[in-house]
Amino acid sequence: MISKQQISEIISKYDQENLAIATVCSHSSLQIFDGARKEGLKTIGICVGQPPRFYDAFPKAKPDEYIVVESYADIPKIAQELVEKNAIIIPHGSFVEYMGAKNFAELPVPTFGNREVLEWESDREKEREWLEGAGIHMPKNVPDPKDINSPVMVKYYGAKGGRGFFIAKTYEEFLENIDPNEKFTIQEFILGTRYYLHYFYSPLETEGYSLSEGTLEMLSMDRRVESNADEIFRLGSPRELEEAGIHPTYVVTGNVPLVARESLLPLIFSLGEKVVEESIKLFGGMVGPFCLETVFTDHLEIKVFEISARIVAGTNFYISGSPYADLVEPDLSTGKRIAKEIKLAKDMGQLDKILS
Amino acid sequence: MISKQQISEIISKYDQENLAIATVCSHSSLQIFDGARKEGLKTIGICVGQPPRFYDAFPKAKPDEYIVVESYADIPKIAQELVEKNAIIIPHGSFVEYMGAKNFAELPVPTFGNREVLEWESDREKEREWLEGAGIHMPKNVPDPKDINSPVMVKYYGAKGGRGFFIAKTYEEFLENIDPNEKFTIQEFILGTRYYLHYFYSPLETEGYSLSEGTLEMLSMDRRVESNADEIFRLGSPRELEEAGIHPTYVVTGNVPLVARESLLPLIFSLGEKVVEESIKLFGGMVGPFCLETVFTDHLEIKVFEISARIVAGTNFYISGSPYADLVEPDLSTGKRIAKEIKLAKDMGQLDKILS
Amino acid sequence: MISKQQISEIISKYDQENLAIATVCSHSSLQIFDGARKEGLKTIGICVGQPPRFYDAFPKAKPDEYIVVESYADIPKIAQELVEKNAIIIPHGSFVEYMGAKNFAELPVPTFGNREVLEWESDREKEREWLEGAGIHMPKNVPDPKDINSPVMVKYYGAKGGRGFFIAKTYEEFLENIDPNEKFTIQEFILGTRYYLHYFYSPLETEGYSLSEGTLEMLSMDRRVESNADEIFRLGSPRELEEAGIHPTYVVTGNVPLVARESLLPLIFSLGEKVVEESIKLFGGMVGPFCLETVFTDHLEIKVFEISARIVAGTNFYISGSPYADLVEPDLSTGKRIAKEIKLAKDMGQLDKILS
Repeated sequence: MISKQQISEIISKYDQENLAIATVCSHSSLQIFDGARKEGLKTIGICVGQPPRFYDAFPKAKPDEYIVVESYADIPKIAQELVEKNAIIIPHGSFVEYMGAKNFAELPVPTFGNREVLEWESDREKEREWLEGAGIHMPKNVPDPKDINSPVMVKYYGAKGGRGFFIAKTYEEFLENIDPNEKFTIQEFILGTRYYLHYFYSPLETEGYSLSEGTLEMLSMDRRVESNADEIFRLGSPRELEEAGIHPTYVVTGNVPLVARESLLPLIFSLGEKVVEESIKLFGGMVGPFCLETVFTDHLEIKVFEISARIVAGTNFYISGSPYADLVEPDLSTGKRIAKEIKLAKDMGQLDKILS
Repeated sequence: MISKQQISEIISKYDQENLAIATVCSHSSLQIFDGARKEGLKTIGICVGQPPRFYDAFPKAKPDEYIVVESYADIPKIAQELVEKNAIIIPHGSFVEYMGAKNFAELPVPTFGNREVLEWESDREKEREWLEGAGIHMPKNVPDPKDINSPVMVKYYGAKGGRGFFIAKTYEEFLENIDPNEKFTIQEFILGTRYYLHYFYSPLETEGYSLSEGTLEMLSMDRRVESNADEIFRLGSPRELEEAGIHPTYVVTGNVPLVARESLLPLIFSLGEKVVEESIKLFGGMVGPFCLETVFTDHLEIKVFEISARIVAGTNFYISGSPYADLVEPDLSTGKRIAKEIKLAKDMGQLDKILS
Repeated sequence: MISKQQISEIISKYDQENLAIATVCSHSSLQIFDGARKEGLKTIGICVGQPPRFYDAFPKAKPDEYIVVESYADIPKIAQELVEKNAIIIPHGSFVEYMGAKNFAELPVPTFGNREVLEWESDREKEREWLEGAGIHMPKNVPDPKDINSPVMVKYYGAKGGRGFFIAKTYEEFLENIDPNEKFTIQEFILGTRYYLHYFYSPLETEGYSLSEGTLEMLSMDRRVESNADEIFRLGSPRELEEAGIHPTYVVTGNVPLVARESLLPLIFSLGEKVVEESIKLFGGMVGPFCLETVFTDHLEIKVFEISARIVAGTNFYISGSPYADLVEPDLSTGKRIAKEIKLAKDMGQLDKILS
C-alpha cells in the first residue's frame, strides 16, 4: 500500500484552492458530483470507453470533465494526470471492485478515507474480529452442518453479488440443497427486518456526537431491493419453489428509503460509535461514510451482518437530504457531506487526517 | 382526570410570549423539537438518567434544555417545574405508555390535545363504539371460533407490542395453533395492503377542509415495517414455518413512506371527517394529529383496524414535508404543524381550545 | 381522431398569455395543478357532480376553477367552454379511461401530447410491435399452455384493474386453475423486482440527453403497491391459499418510492431512448411523460411488460422533486415539468409540436 508519507507529499504540492474530486462514473457518482458542485469543488468523472451520456440528463450531477480509460484496470495510468488536476479520489464500492483492491491500494493519488480499512473489511475473518472486538452482535457461524438447529444461511465460497446462497431450517434441508462439490460456510439466519444504516465519521474536531476522537453522524438508512428474493413469494413458498427448481437470489437492484423506530437511535449510535472506536485502535480509524448492514429482530435487537467502510448506494435516494440529515443541515447528501469534509479539512490545514 | 378548569387556570398564568413545548425524548421527539424550533418555540426534553447523546448529532432537533427524571413514572414530580417554564406537553405514544395512562390523566401541566380521548382509544370496546358509530368499517369480531370461515387474526389477551397473535384460515388451523390456557379474541383478517393515514384536526376557525367545527388536513401516510412478519416469507410459508416451530411477529421497527391512489382521497378524507365528527359528539373532540391504521382491499375499500389519537411515529419520515403536506406549505412536518397550531391558538386567544 | 390541423387552428386563436391547464380531478391531478400554479398557469378542474372537497385541504393544488359535468362521458359538451378559457388538457390514465378512448380521440380541445399514441398503447399487439420493434425485451407469449416450462402469468380476456390473472409454474398448475369457459393469454412470468420508470420526452430543441429529435429525461421511479398480492404471503403460500380458495389480485392502491442501482442508468436511458425513437418512426412520436413498467431480473436485465404514454400515478410521491429530478432543477414534479414544457413551447412558438 502506498504510504501515508507519500500521499502527504503529493498533497503538499496541491493547489488547495483548486481541489477537484474524482470518481468512477457509477454506483453513487451522481450524488458525489452533485455534492461537490454544491460545495464549489471541481469534479472529474472517470469512465471507460466514452463519457456516459446519461449525465446529460442530470445537469447538476454532470462532472466538469471526464477522463476516459480503456478499462478500469488502467486507472493507475491516469494517476499523474489526476495529481496534476489536484484530484482527490472518492472511492465507492464499484470503484474498488472495478479497479481491483491491489491496484487501489497502490494508487498514487490522494484518496478520501483510510485505505487500511480495505484489508479489514474485505477479509471475512478480520471483519468479524473488528466487529466482534467492538462488541457488535453478528450472526453466529455454524462450523458443522449437523449442528443446524435453527434457520441458517449457507454460502458457497466465492459466492458473489447475491448468488450462491441458500437458506436451510434443518440439517435435512441442508442435505437436500447442498452441492457436495462446493465449499461452503454456514451462518445463523437472523429473522427480522433489514436496515442499512448510513453513518459518517469525521476525525476533525467539530461539535456534535463526540467519540474519543472526532464526531459521528447518522445521515440516513435504506433497505436494499433484492432480486429475486423480494418478490419470489408471489410464485411460491421456498419449498414449492424448490420443487420447481427455482432458487432465490439476492442481487441488489435498488434501494427503498425508510426510518427506524426512534427509541432505537441510542442503540444505533452506540453501534456506530463502537465500530469507529475499534477501527481507531486497530488501524488508525475509518474516515467518512460507512454503512452497517443489519437486521432488526422482533426483540428490537440489532444484528450486524456486514460493514461497508465507504459510501454505499443506499444513500442515493437522499440526494437532497433525508429525515435524519435534514436535522444537521438542509439539502445534505452523503456526497455533499464528503465535499464539506474535504473543504473543512483544507481550511483547518488537516487534509492529511482524512486522505490516504 | 385533571379538569379543563384547572388547566385553564394554569394557562392563564403562563407567559404566553415564552411558551415552551416539552416531551419525552423518544418516539417522534426529533420532529417535535425540530418543528418547535422552526416556529420559534422553546423546547424541553424529558429524559431518564441523562440526556440522550444522539441529539448532539442532530443539532436542529436538540432541545434547548433537558429535564432529567429517574424514571418516567416520576414525571408528575416535575410538573411544577414544567409549569414554571410555561411548558405545553406534546404527548406521543411512548409518552403515555412510559408514564402510565393514569399518571398522564392527572398530570397538572397543560397538554396538547384532549385528554378525554385516551379512554376512548385505549379500551377496545369503546374504540369500536366510536369508530363504528362514525360509520367506519372495521374488521368483524368472531365470537365463536367454530364460525371461522375466512382468514382471522387470533389475539391473546394482554398481547402487546406485536406478539401474541396468530393467523388462521379455518377452524382446524385455529385448533392446531391455539394455546388452550390463554384467553383470546378473534377478528376478521383483512387481506389487502396496510396504510397508516396521518391526519391533523384543528378546532380553530381557519380556512380549509371544513367540518361542522374546525378543519381537517391529511399530512402524510406510511407503512409500518414489522419484524419479523415483513421478511419471514424468505424462510418459509406459514405452514412450513409452523412445522419448524417458527412464528410470525408484528413488532414495529420502522416506517416506509408511500402515497395512495389519488381516487381514494375523497374516501380517505371522509373517514377522517367521520371520526372527528363522532369524537366531537362523544367527548368534545380530538385535537391535533391522529392516525387511522387501515387496510386497502382489492375492492378499494378501506377497513380501519385501529385509531391513534396523537402523533404517530410513521410521520417521522416526513420531517421536511411529504407529498401531501407540501401542498399545504413547504417544510411541514406533523411536529411543525403542532407548533403552528399552538402559536395560532395563542394569537387567537384560544389556547383553551387545544390544550387540556 | 380530430386532426392536427383542426387543433392548430384552435390554438392559433388562443390568448397565449392566458393559457390554462385542465384535467379531471383524480389520478395525478394534485401535482398537475400544483405544477401549473408554480409555473404561473391557470388551472381548471373537471369533476363530476360537485367539486371534490379534499382540495380545500391542499391549497397549493386547488384549481383556480372547476367545471362540473354530470358524467365524464359529458366532457365533449364542455369542449367549447374549455376552448374559450384557452385550456390545454393534460390527459392522465383516469382521464382517458373515464371519458372513453373514442370520446377522447375526437375531443376538439388542444391536448398535451400526441393522441396517436393511444392506439399503439391500448392494443396489446400494437404495443408489442412498438416495443419489440424498438429492441426492448418483453416477457414472451406462450401460445400453447402445453409449452409451459417455466412460470407464467395467465390472463383472462377482459381482465381489468388487477384481477383475472393467475400464476402457474407448470402445465399441471395451469390445468388446476384455468376456468375452461374463459379465453386467456399466457405470458412468461419474469422473476425479479418491479420498477416503474418515469421518463419525460421533449420534442423541443433544448440541451440535455439528445435523441435524433428532442431530449429525454428520467425524472423518478416507483414500485406500485398491489392489493392483495403484496401482503398475501402473511396468510399462506400460493398453494396453501389455493387450497383455501383465496386468490391473489393485483389492484394498485398506491406507490412506494425507490431508486435503482446506478450502474443500470445507461440501460434505463437506452430503453427510454429506443422507445421514443421508435415512436417517432411509427406515429410521429410521444410527447411528455411516459412510463416503462419493468422487472429487474437477478441478471440485471430489464424486461418491459407495459408502457404508459402519459403521466402515471407513480410520480405522485415526487411532488417536490425526486432523487433524479433534483439533478435537473429543484422542486420538479412531473406535473411541473409538463407546465414548463407548455410555457417553453409557447415562448418558442411551437405549441403545435407538443399539442394534438
